[in-house]
Amino acid sequence: MQALVYHGPGQKAWDDVPEPTLQAPTDAIVRIDTTTICGTDLHILKGDVPAVIPGTILGHEAVGTISEIGSAVTGFEVGDRILISCITSCGRCPSCKQGRYGLCTGGGGWILGHLIDGVQAEYARIPFVDTSAYKIPEGLTDEQVLFLADIFPTAYEVGILNGQVKPGDVVAIVGAGPIGLAAVLTAKLYTPATIVVLDVADERLELAKKFGADVTINNGIEDAVARIMELTEGRGADVAIEAVGVPATFELCSEIVSSGGTVANVGVHGSPVTLHLEKLWIKGVTITTGLVDTFTTPTLLKLIAQGRLDGTPFTTHRFKLSESVEAYDVFGAAAETNALKVVLEGEKTPLNAPKREALALA
Amino acid sequence: MQALVYHGPGQKAWDDVPEPTLQAPTDAIVRIDTTTICGTDLHILKGDVPAVIPGTILGHEAVGTISEIGSAVTGFEVGDRILISCITSCGRCPSCKQGRYGLCTGGGGWILGHLIDGVQAEYARIPFVDTSAYKIPEGLTDEQVLFLADIFPTAYEVGILNGQVKPGDVVAIVGAGPIGLAAVLTAKLYTPATIVVLDVADERLELAKKFGADVTINNGIEDAVARIMELTEGRGADVAIEAVGVPATFELCSEIVSSGGTVANVGVHGSPVTLHLEKLWIKGVTITTGLVDTFTTPTLLKLIAQGRLDGTPFTTHRFKLSESVEAYDVFGAAAETNALKVVLEGEKTPLNAPKREALALA
Amino acid sequence: MQALVYHGPGQKAWDDVPEPTLQAPTDAIVRIDTTTICGTDLHILKGDVPAVIPGTILGHEAVGTISEIGSAVTGFEVGDRILISCITSCGRCPSCKQGRYGLCTGGGGWILGHLIDGVQAEYARIPFVDTSAYKIPEGLTDEQVLFLADIFPTAYEVGILNGQVKPGDVVAIVGAGPIGLAAVLTAKLYTPATIVVLDVADERLELAKKFGADVTINNGIEDAVARIMELTEGRGADVAIEAVGVPATFELCSEIVSSGGTVANVGVHGSPVTLHLEKLWIKGVTITTGLVDTFTTPTLLKLIAQGRLDGTPFTTHRFKLSESVEAYDVFGAAAETNALKVVLEGEKTPLNAPKREALALA
Amino acid sequence: MQALVYHGPGQKAWDDVPEPTLQAPTDAIVRIDTTTICGTDLHILKGDVPAVIPGTILGHEAVGTISEIGSAVTGFEVGDRILISCITSCGRCPSCKQGRYGLCTGGGGWILGHLIDGVQAEYARIPFVDTSAYKIPEGLTDEQVLFLADIFPTAYEVGILNGQVKPGDVVAIVGAGPIGLAAVLTAKLYTPATIVVLDVADERLELAKKFGADVTINNGIEDAVARIMELTEGRGADVAIEAVGVPATFELCSEIVSSGGTVANVGVHGSPVTLHLEKLWIKGVTITTGLVDTFTTPTLLKLIAQGRLDGTPFTTHRFKLSESVEAYDVFGAAAETNALKVVLEGEKTPLNAPKREALALA
Repeated sequence: MQALVYHGPGQKAWDDVPEPTLQAPTDAIVRIDTTTICGTDLHILKGDVPAVIPGTILGHEAVGTISEIGSAVTGFEVGDRILISCITSCGRCPSCKQGRYGLCTGGGGWILGHLIDGVQAEYARIPFVDTSAYKIPEGLTDEQVLFLADIFPTAYEVGILNGQVKPGDVVAIVGAGPIGLAAVLTAKLYTPATIVVLDVADERLELAKKFGADVTINNGIEDAVARIMELTEGRGADVAIEAVGVPATFELCSEIVSSGGTVANVGVHGSPVTLHLEKLWIKGVTITTGLVDTFTTPTLLKLIAQGRLDGTPFTTHRFKLSESVEAYDVFGAAAETNALKVVLEGEKTPLNAPKREALALA
Repeated sequence: MQALVYHGPGQKAWDDVPEPTLQAPTDAIVRIDTTTICGTDLHILKGDVPAVIPGTILGHEAVGTISEIGSAVTGFEVGDRILISCITSCGRCPSCKQGRYGLCTGGGGWILGHLIDGVQAEYARIPFVDTSAYKIPEGLTDEQVLFLADIFPTAYEVGILNGQVKPGDVVAIVGAGPIGLAAVLTAKLYTPATIVVLDVADERLELAKKFGADVTINNGIEDAVARIMELTEGRGADVAIEAVGVPATFELCSEIVSSGGTVANVGVHGSPVTLHLEKLWIKGVTITTGLVDTFTTPTLLKLIAQGRLDGTPFTTHRFKLSESVEAYDVFGAAAETNALKVVLEGEKTPLNAPKREALALA
Repeated sequence: MQALVYHGPGQKAWDDVPEPTLQAPTDAIVRIDTTTICGTDLHILKGDVPAVIPGTILGHEAVGTISEIGSAVTGFEVGDRILISCITSCGRCPSCKQGRYGLCTGGGGWILGHLIDGVQAEYARIPFVDTSAYKIPEGLTDEQVLFLADIFPTAYEVGILNGQVKPGDVVAIVGAGPIGLAAVLTAKLYTPATIVVLDVADERLELAKKFGADVTINNGIEDAVARIMELTEGRGADVAIEAVGVPATFELCSEIVSSGGTVANVGVHGSPVTLHLEKLWIKGVTITTGLVDTFTTPTLLKLIAQGRLDGTPFTTHRFKLSESVEAYDVFGAAAETNALKVVLEGEKTPLNAPKREALALA
Repeated sequence: MQALVYHGPGQKAWDDVPEPTLQAPTDAIVRIDTTTICGTDLHILKGDVPAVIPGTILGHEAVGTISEIGSAVTGFEVGDRILISCITSCGRCPSCKQGRYGLCTGGGGWILGHLIDGVQAEYARIPFVDTSAYKIPEGLTDEQVLFLADIFPTAYEVGILNGQVKPGDVVAIVGAGPIGLAAVLTAKLYTPATIVVLDVADERLELAKKFGADVTINNGIEDAVARIMELTEGRGADVAIEAVGVPATFELCSEIVSSGGTVANVGVHGSPVTLHLEKLWIKGVTITTGLVDTFTTPTLLKLIAQGRLDGTPFTTHRFKLSESVEAYDVFGAAAETNALKVVLEGEKTPLNAPKREALALA
């Protein structure tokens, strides 16, 4: 089969590779029908994530169809159409039993396209499929559910729920990339009074308005702290969500949050930040961090099925799966292409014949 | 009457001053029966709290007896014995209505011995007495309840409750001064599996053991991070409570906390700290700050009345109220005197005749 | 002045009565600008609420303008336009300090039009005004905020919040009167997947659809349990809200709730009900009861000001305040008149001159 | 091997039966080292639980040693000493993923000694062992952990946690059998101000005092409601825990609970009860029900290992496993024998040789 393979910093290719095979009784093999590229994939390609060794297939977001299942799999059958999540859960370790799948110590966590081969491929091996994948309800398209693989639960759990957004709140979201925009959409599930989005690119702020922001602030030009204080009669935002990942935006969040409010960090940070405890110690502020656990995926799936949440506006570009290299170029040049999410579509060729027997014989 | 008056950095005196008078219908005048000195009072004397203007009477922790009440006071009568709390609550502003009295915007918050005259005096004016003071149940001594004025609710609310201590947790408390030791006593209300106390003074660590610490670590000598990791099989503490107020101890807390755990900052900080978000962003950590609200004072009072909580071991020295200057010297030299809490006892002379009529005539 | 006075079971009149006067330093006198009639007022008129003694002015929901204030009032001034809530809070008792104003033991709770004169009058005395009334933001009409006096916070606190409605839930609301419909509107603040409304009157179910119900069931005709189970693949509703107040509807709620779900009782009951613990003991069900506390009124007011919540569709009829008797007739015959909420509008004559001085001299 | 087999109402025998074998890759076979008898086993023997078919081996509480494991088991090895819980969790269904193992829809829940053969036997098959059993820390005896199989988590989760016991509460526990006494021990983890135990047998009340009750009331003789109101200055208990399972005790709980309090039902009920909603609708009361989920077992195990919780006083009688019939007689006549928990000890003969290979070959 063919797949998008990482060959070290700056190098990737659409290569011929061996088909994946079942390695544990809890595995499934899945034909990839639709996948997408994440900002994290770009970081890997830059060499920022040394845990990814050359030769690894990239990708951790997909919709696919099961072609083989291990002997211990009970929740799925060959032919089932599933959502593959960025987080794998063993379902057995203390973290998983508390719903903290992102902290799985039993062989899961973020492994796809990271510690094992990922899903930007014709087929992929999905470990612990019973506790890590989700059957897709009839009638939903691949693209309707695809963004549940990462950005929706990430924004919702690490931003909205950690931030404890409540009806009537003023919510400030710093960063209007895919995660920030997913935070706008999922914040609305709790009906805040006002959603403010801050970014340095006016195009992104325009987009934020379309996604539902009530107020936008270009914090490259405007005095963002002054604007927020003016909007809130000097109180600050009840919740400030960091969706960028650099010190300046985190520190901005800590300045615009109200006494008693919450700063929910979603961004991936590479450097330490300065925390102004000399001001914050008395303010009754809560700061949260975290990787997504995806424990809300079933809830978000229900909301999509009922038409209460819609991720399809994220898609700005579509390619064939075999055009992955070109797709990366478009996504990597988002500042010029205005790419938000780039969708890769597989061939959906008929499934290989079920192979459970083959395994049993082997 | 006489009182301990702040006369600018480094200067204090036991002075003759005018008796306080009712200034609002919600005020009470209280004869001070027992009071104590706080570490914050030492900061004021060093000039660290410029909001305190020379001429201010110090002190924000006391037990007293009401000698006069304003016309709108309904919950107390002359002669009632009350606990005076470090936090004043107007009971009307949005913060007070949410139980966040420390953030009171209606004229309360920490004002005694700070923005208005305090309680290290023969008499004191207590604003908003109905919503700020607590009647003392029969049979309890002044010293049994005195530490409810500040250190008990501070340690409990800002440390234990913000930290979300639960049965079975490993709780690490950094700093074994009065607040850290009050955190040990109130952590035990939730039956953690293990309480670890860290400090750089062995005398304090000895004391921590007497107060109930299971493990003590001298972090001036030992590798505290290694010790905590060893104790917890590499996981770290479920809750780390910062009870010192300097960057090094906050940063230590952020290193010893487990994935999914909480750092509860109680210390008063004068400088920014470095937050290692490049490590913490993925760890699902919560960091909290805050001033005490004293919303738990009624609960803690019940526990003291039932013998479930006992603050009397905090008292290491006792003086007459008129010996306040000497008492400050002993408390200020804690490293030599081993002072923990220094208690000042008033004369308890008969109350002046009730004066509500006098006010009405004025 | 004139007011709607209760004269014993079945008897009411628009009478000449003395103007109210300040009786405590925490009182205000308020000119009633707009008021409305509650189902509870009809119960009083039937003699179902014996605590209401003949001679009492009825009414506990109003918007008005302050004409006099007591000497201890600090949050309002003469001329302020306020929302008068069905619940009065002393702000000082243990219940009020926990936000449970409905359980106030300091002279508040539901007293207006019940234990003291109410607001269906030209002027009313409002006790504890600082902790019981809310300033109305500029630009909002009386009718936009009027329903915050009772039905909105009742439905939201006792139904939606007690029921712990979450995004993605199936919420079943039994009863489509004003409270049930307010539950539909406020449930939507948490974006449930599906709102099902049950009632025995098709007109009310039509209305429920207009207010936002996704599914309606006439439980006088249809097998409601079967319909709910079909809708939820046999699981039942996550939250069932009782908004009628008779045994049959409570028992229906206990049959349609899912394992792990919540029955939130909002209805006022006059008889015991049968609880099928022989089925429910194993189901992990929570049942809640309660009178409104109105602690969410500031939040709901913010949502109305931002256009996120709109109560104006409740008004079906409007009368002059002096036509109160006729208005009661229309509201009492709701089955024929289709009345939902009947609004009474005062004359808004110029305020009497401020009288604080008068009081001081008295 | 031999086991205690149910032969229909009133009939049981210590029989020769076939050894259990692995039936799924997630199974383990366990040598039973120590087991105990539950009140539920007596109900089964009376024929009250028709789902138990004649021929079933009884028992759902045990400590054992693994003798064989299925091919998908990753968390345990042959020879591991484990706690077997009354609740089996598939780890994959929506209920299990929310920690509600008692509501497992994937083949678990309460199945041992109920829907499949139980643990009062020399060997038992334990399904889903990875997600249902717990490794026992070195140094703990069988009896120290045995009561974690059922009564400790049941009392803690369904009584203390559902009841939301907090420091300072008055907790009333109705029923002083093993569950009620386990509620006393686990309530203390949250340091209530006062634990009151009610029962009709003075011997049980004596025992309750030994377990830590502060006050006991014989509600067969005394006016229990009056006593509780006197103790609480007319407020009632913050939490009332029903640990009997008959209408009278549930109704007693609903009378002694305070406004704003919680009734946590733990008892297994066979009949409906009367709920006095005509009094309760206004009281802000929460009523909870539920089967144990055992999600707290790891926490309770930690507390036992640290000496914070001790279940060994539950054991009143000890028998050999082969004397099960006699043990049932003693336990069934608790009123005369004063039996609390009756422990059955296996022979601990050497394990059969590991059989994973045998399976693979089969």
